Amino acid sequence: MDDFKPKTVQQISQQYRNDLSEWIEESRARPKLIGFLANDDEAAVTYAKFTERSCKKIGIRFDLKRVKREDLEEAIIEANEDRKVDGIMVYYPVFGGGHDQYIQNCVSPFKDVEGLCHTFRFNMYHNIRFIDVQKKSIIPCTPLAILKILYHMNAYDHDLEYGNQLEGKTITVINRSEVVGRPLAALLANDGAKTYSVDLDGILQFHRAPGRMKHRVTGTDLRLEEVLPKSDVIISGVPKRGYRVPSKLIKQGAFVIDFSSEGNFEDDVVDRASVFVGKIGSMTIVMLQRNLMRLYDYRRDAAMRFRFH
Amino acid sequence: MDDFKPKTVQQISQQYRNDLSEWIEESRARPKLIGFLANDDEAAVTYAKFTERSCKKIGIRFDLKRVKREDLEEAIIEANEDRKVDGIMVYYPVFGGGHDQYIQNCVSPFKDVEGLCHTFRFNMYHNIRFIDVQKKSIIPCTPLAILKILYHMNAYDHDLEYGNQLEGKTITVINRSEVVGRPLAALLANDGAKTYSVDLDGILQFHRAPGRMKHRVTGTDLRLEEVLPKSDVIISGVPKRGYRVPSKLIKQGAFVIDFSSEGNFEDDVVDRASVFVGKIGSMTIVMLQRNLMRLYDYRRDAAMRFRFH
Repeated sequence: MDDFKPKTVQQISQQYRNDLSEWIEESRARPKLIGFLANDDEAAVTYAKFTERSCKKIGIRFDLKRVKREDLEEAIIEANEDRKVDGIMVYYPVFGGGHDQYIQNCVSPFKDVEGLCHTFRFNMYHNIRFIDVQKKSIIPCTPLAILKILYHMNAYDHDLEYGNQLEGKTITVINRSEVVGRPLAALLANDGAKTYSVDLDGILQFHRAPGRMKHRVTGTDLRLEEVLPKSDVIISGVPKRGYRVPSKLIKQGAFVIDFSSEGNFEDDVVDRASVFVGKIGSMTIVMLQRNLMRLYDYRRDAAMRFRFH
Repeated sequence: MDDFKPKTVQQISQQYRNDLSEWIEESRARPKLIGFLANDDEAAVTYAKFTERSCKKIGIRFDLKRVKREDLEEAIIEANEDRKVDGIMVYYPVFGGGHDQYIQNCVSPFKDVEGLCHTFRFNMYHNIRFIDVQKKSIIPCTPLAILKILYHMNAYDHDLEYGNQLEGKTITVINRSEVVGRPLAALLANDGAKTYSVDLDGILQFHRAPGRMKHRVTGTDLRLEEVLPKSDVIISGVPKRGYRVPSKLIKQGAFVIDFSSEGNFEDDVVDRASVFVGKIGSMTIVMLQRNLMRLYDYRRDAAMRFRFH
């Protein structure tokens, strides 16, 4: 890979956007995505506007609905039942904590573009990749965006078998949230990597035994100083201003991705990393749109089968 | 109700235990409950021993399994599939936060004696009381225990229609956790009460419009000093040492229940309250056992129908 010049995230996401445009044109429909905004979070508003612009470009109708948080659950249930709605997303946090997770489970799996309902989460943790013949399970957008970046920047070994192309790689993920860090560690292990999942309460190891589908999780006594220098890939998303991964712990030539909004790496990370990806937002949005199109097709297929039965 | 002498919690739970003993004898089986202990919490161990003793008395086999937290999910899935297991409970917290809620959703609804999976939660918030003909939805044990205490101590008006017997009552619930406080406020509103749900981030009102099934939730600007003196029933479960509800705010003759482990009321609460219930543990356990027997019957009924179809 000496002369390998990796694509940029912009190039990768543009390719996905082109494919989606074609897909949408072929489907001869205008899929509709609803975004529910039930907080005053400025980052959410910015993200929503960004999503809207991107959707418009490729032929997806994006409808941003502002609702009071007390009315959110009913609004989701209406959208679940509205045949004109193809996908539903919610800008979190709304209530925070367990109530938000309850809300995530109120979104119908047929419209859950974020892949946050229990059915899809469970499939992901158990490496169940399909929900039906030719129908892939839906994976949460941010972890999926990171996988696709690694894939297209050749962190995956394409000579290995599908589902095992990270074998031999050691990866550290700093963040173990339910929405990004834990699913990401699981997905990387599902693809064969030995993954260290780092959080305030310690480091867990996610790994798959050769020939087995499911990964296992084991506790470790390791510290960040021990796992980072061994890691071929380092991914960080600590939502704390001022948190920095020390560059001196990063292996020369490592692949580094930052998905925090604060910036988790020091400026000289570029001297150590072979690839440094500091922003993944454009990939996250295109993965959201791709999930929408999958769900759109699944529903259309189900309707067709029903009609011809 | 001048000469009305309310039953004690001990008397009420004993009555339920007697009924359950009969039910179990009639069912001619020995239902099996598994409790998963994946932490070192001393309170959990005590509660488990208490549960075991109580189960033994009425003919329920209780099997306490200690597992490493990393192995909990697989152990639950095995128990879901094990036909000899009738009910599953988990001593929380295990991982804490969203991961625990994920675990709650891994328990099969057919065996979820704690009523914490999304199906049962959703039914509860939407006042859907039955999952099938003569099959009631499962309600979480602690909120259910509190409802039953209110019911049998005559806080419910038995002259009113079923499902509306708290109409006209104002109730304050201090605690809005996903496991007790929020479900409890919803259940009280489902039965007709105007319920104030108090948490650090403010006071919400849960209420049902006359003739409607579903309750609504609205934000308020009210403070505790305003809602307490109006409340016919006050229920508190603040898990913070030293937190005390000021007795002087309690309406003379109010019905007061403490479900905290710390004791949320001052000693002189008994001078204001017509009824003060300081411990509800025995009711919680008997509700757990009652949920187990419901689920046992549902599964047996399904098997019978299958056999005779």
